Amino acid sequence: MKLLQIDFPYSGAMGDEMAEGFNELAKSISKEKGLVFKIWTENAHTQEAGGIYIFEDLTSLETYLKMHIKRLESFGVTGIRYKIFDINEPLSAITKAPL
Amino acid sequence: MKLLQIDFPYSGAMGDEMAEGFNELAKSISKEKGLVFKIWTENAHTQEAGGIYIFEDLTSLETYLKMHIKRLESFGVTGIRYKIFDINEPLSAITKAPL
Repeated sequence: MKLLQIDFPYSGAMGDEMAEGFNELAKSISKEKGLVFKIWTENAHTQEAGGIYIFEDLTSLETYLKMHIKRLESFGVTGIRYKIFDINEPLSAITKAPL
Repeated sequence: MKLLQIDFPYSGAMGDEMAEGFNELAKSISKEKGLVFKIWTENAHTQEAGGIYIFEDLTSLETYLKMHIKRLESFGVTGIRYKIFDINEPLSAITKAPL
């Protein structure tokens, strides 16, 4: 499994309003090849949003990331920061990660 | 729930060797007040490590973060980057997040 950590400046709707606006997008993301799950992140104080994704493998992650960056840019998002990580599964199991 | 995203330059052991070395630390972290879970992240190519944490509330997260930064610094870690986020729970539920 691979983890994608992504965040960017965002001043649009958050909370329930964001949940309504991105409902269809979330349904689409849930069907992406190799996706295990995505946690949607938002911070109204710092005006940032992003996501923590788990993918089954690096190829699925990289294919999604390339497409998602283009999609974010098409929404007018700039300043996208991302990092790709391996997961230390034995340590994560001890700290109760549901993987 | 609140999410803490933290990463830093790291050139020590990773994988199984890291899992052995940090076994006791992981057990200790698993008992931290308010912790829901931690995913341990590592990247041998970029020489970075970190974690994605979910806490029950901001107070628990901030108490842990303050202590953990001191602990990392005592290990010689510098260049620590972190971000605190709210979780958009309706969207995360659609994208299969186990929260």
